[in-house]
Amino acid sequence: MNYQEALAADLKIRLQRVQNAIQANGNDACVLATGVNIFYITGRVYNGYCFIPAEGKPIHFVKRPQDIDFENTIFIRKPEQIIEELEKRNIALPQNVLLESDILPYSEYMRIANTLQAPKFGNASVFMRQIRSVKTEFELTQIRKCARSHEAVYKQIPSVFRRGMTDIELQIEIERLMRLHGSLGIFRSYGMNMDIYMGSLLTGENAEAPSPFDYALGGQGANPILPLGASGNKIEEGQAIMVDMAGNYTPWMTDMTRVFSVGKTSELAYKAHEVSRDIHTKLESIIKPGITCGELYNTAMDIVKRNDLEAYFMGTKLQAKFIGHGVGLEINEPPVLTPRSKEILEPNIVFALEPKFVIPEIGAVGNENTLLVTETGVEKITIFEENIIEL
Amino acid sequence: MNYQEALAADLKIRLQRVQNAIQANGNDACVLATGVNIFYITGRVYNGYCFIPAEGKPIHFVKRPQDIDFENTIFIRKPEQIIEELEKRNIALPQNVLLESDILPYSEYMRIANTLQAPKFGNASVFMRQIRSVKTEFELTQIRKCARSHEAVYKQIPSVFRRGMTDIELQIEIERLMRLHGSLGIFRSYGMNMDIYMGSLLTGENAEAPSPFDYALGGQGANPILPLGASGNKIEEGQAIMVDMAGNYTPWMTDMTRVFSVGKTSELAYKAHEVSRDIHTKLESIIKPGITCGELYNTAMDIVKRNDLEAYFMGTKLQAKFIGHGVGLEINEPPVLTPRSKEILEPNIVFALEPKFVIPEIGAVGNENTLLVTETGVEKITIFEENIIEL
Repeated sequence: MNYQEALAADLKIRLQRVQNAIQANGNDACVLATGVNIFYITGRVYNGYCFIPAEGKPIHFVKRPQDIDFENTIFIRKPEQIIEELEKRNIALPQNVLLESDILPYSEYMRIANTLQAPKFGNASVFMRQIRSVKTEFELTQIRKCARSHEAVYKQIPSVFRRGMTDIELQIEIERLMRLHGSLGIFRSYGMNMDIYMGSLLTGENAEAPSPFDYALGGQGANPILPLGASGNKIEEGQAIMVDMAGNYTPWMTDMTRVFSVGKTSELAYKAHEVSRDIHTKLESIIKPGITCGELYNTAMDIVKRNDLEAYFMGTKLQAKFIGHGVGLEINEPPVLTPRSKEILEPNIVFALEPKFVIPEIGAVGNENTLLVTETGVEKITIFEENIIEL
Repeated sequence: MNYQEALAADLKIRLQRVQNAIQANGNDACVLATGVNIFYITGRVYNGYCFIPAEGKPIHFVKRPQDIDFENTIFIRKPEQIIEELEKRNIALPQNVLLESDILPYSEYMRIANTLQAPKFGNASVFMRQIRSVKTEFELTQIRKCARSHEAVYKQIPSVFRRGMTDIELQIEIERLMRLHGSLGIFRSYGMNMDIYMGSLLTGENAEAPSPFDYALGGQGANPILPLGASGNKIEEGQAIMVDMAGNYTPWMTDMTRVFSVGKTSELAYKAHEVSRDIHTKLESIIKPGITCGELYNTAMDIVKRNDLEAYFMGTKLQAKFIGHGVGLEINEPPVLTPRSKEILEPNIVFALEPKFVIPEIGAVGNENTLLVTETGVEKITIFEENIIEL
């Protein structure tokens, strides 16, 4: 089976999953308008509305581009045409419709809702994210391919590091390596005000800087318009360099963090890094379908407490309250590993595990890997040196 | 006056403009929740709600980061706390409130609206974009600074070009130059489904590929998840290379396109490029406060028609129906230069003018400059060689 055939077969599976869920929830249809969900269902991005009935084929109401040629493609200029086009085809107007209410802007949502005039609307954002959190075999193939590029880039990091560089200068060279290895550039994160550019590189005291964004760690950033990540400080001898750059080599992403040090770093940093590794080892031994995300978080926290490292865990001034998150077409998918989460892992969920510590003056330590929940346990997808790598 | 003093003085001017407009529209308050508008008003980005009354000081309801220390900062966990905090301070609840309805997701909008319980809500998205389209002196200083970096990077493009490169390989080297010259990475575009990464580089037949996004030109992109721009094709002798990479060196951006060619390119390409230059010259001679954007578009179109180049103008298979757009904190601000636009230019509006032609097999030609409307005419902000630059 070639790529196009595999994709076509996979799109059928994805559509079936969505339609099963539409039916299970007692809905008639789901209307998708965001690029990421349209891509998930069709393999392409178009500007328009993907109308998915509970049964039967989707209808693609496309504004642009005009080379979209799926079965049931109808070109429109505005959403108000959807109803007349459905009526023309004698398709019953849906009564119970899912819209992407957590992402569609209010005006756009209202325009579609006023057009469809359904008695009831539900939330397709949560619904689609839930479905997307369980990956198909095709998606896993893409994720594994992505991981190989992610690893190949990290392997070359020592070759672009030079003493005296700033954090941003190092990041720029890593960005170039990423692009030369096929990084697509685009780095999708879900939600409002979650700006990020190609990942995060944190060294020294900048690792403590709190950020407005809900990522695991912060950093001041280079400019107040993007208060996240590298800040332009010179990387000093003895500091840890946490590299958490995007794994965006295929549409489905991987998330991987590794730590480098300029010469030797501090005892506390080495200790905390080992504790992060212990957390990975322990969690990998208990992860299996049926376990809750809260249980994983709390198991990790027990190890942190036993090692008296709470003050450094997931930040100092601002501490993130999660240690992992789903990853796929977006970098922050469900499930999220929080203390009270009752979300249950199931086979083919892919998530990033990132127990990290911020060490004042030194930087941040701890690894992040992308993991796949299997039928019986877990498979590590990102395979790369896990010790602190001395530069 | 140092930078911080200049910024503080400018923030007062910006706030006053917003409050004048709130009053002029008969509103009581505006509540901003998107990073770009909060940055415009405060000079920083926070996760929370900037409550701007028609008169008096704004109140900053901040979720994170906790180092925000503006006067009237109130830390909250959720928007529902806004009302109790206002009541605690004996602040009258607003009756007529502007919310960013074109950007805030439906769920978030409803949550704020249900919290505030105002009898009337208006649209702060259009309102803020209108205000932001007229730049302050401080903003103009930033835009000019941005232009100098933009020009410096374009100047180095010939030094990174090598025959046999693909379009993406060339773009990667330009991206690196950009970052080394201070590009902030982030490239803000307004609206849903307007994905882009660091700009657009178009060569050969790829310049004809239509895109789902509402940018001036398209391009197939490197992957279906980002169907825009460079596609990975080898750049061939005789082709034109249109470079429209981001001018994101300060929070306020510039937009500039220049054309390079590998050896000599086609007669049609040279001719169309000269017509683009003629359009620039003609429009620069008539731009002044009071002129409508439609008049500019139609003047340009007359020149295109007189030269029999309509089939190539702003694309071939898909032709954009605008030749320019405002630019600032976002790359696509008002006004937009469309055929029927009645939008009127006024002093201190900054916009990009981009009459472009797509030449089949060859690529795209035509320049783009960022222009400032002055009291009496226009000032070109982006100054760089305007002939096709032979490589």
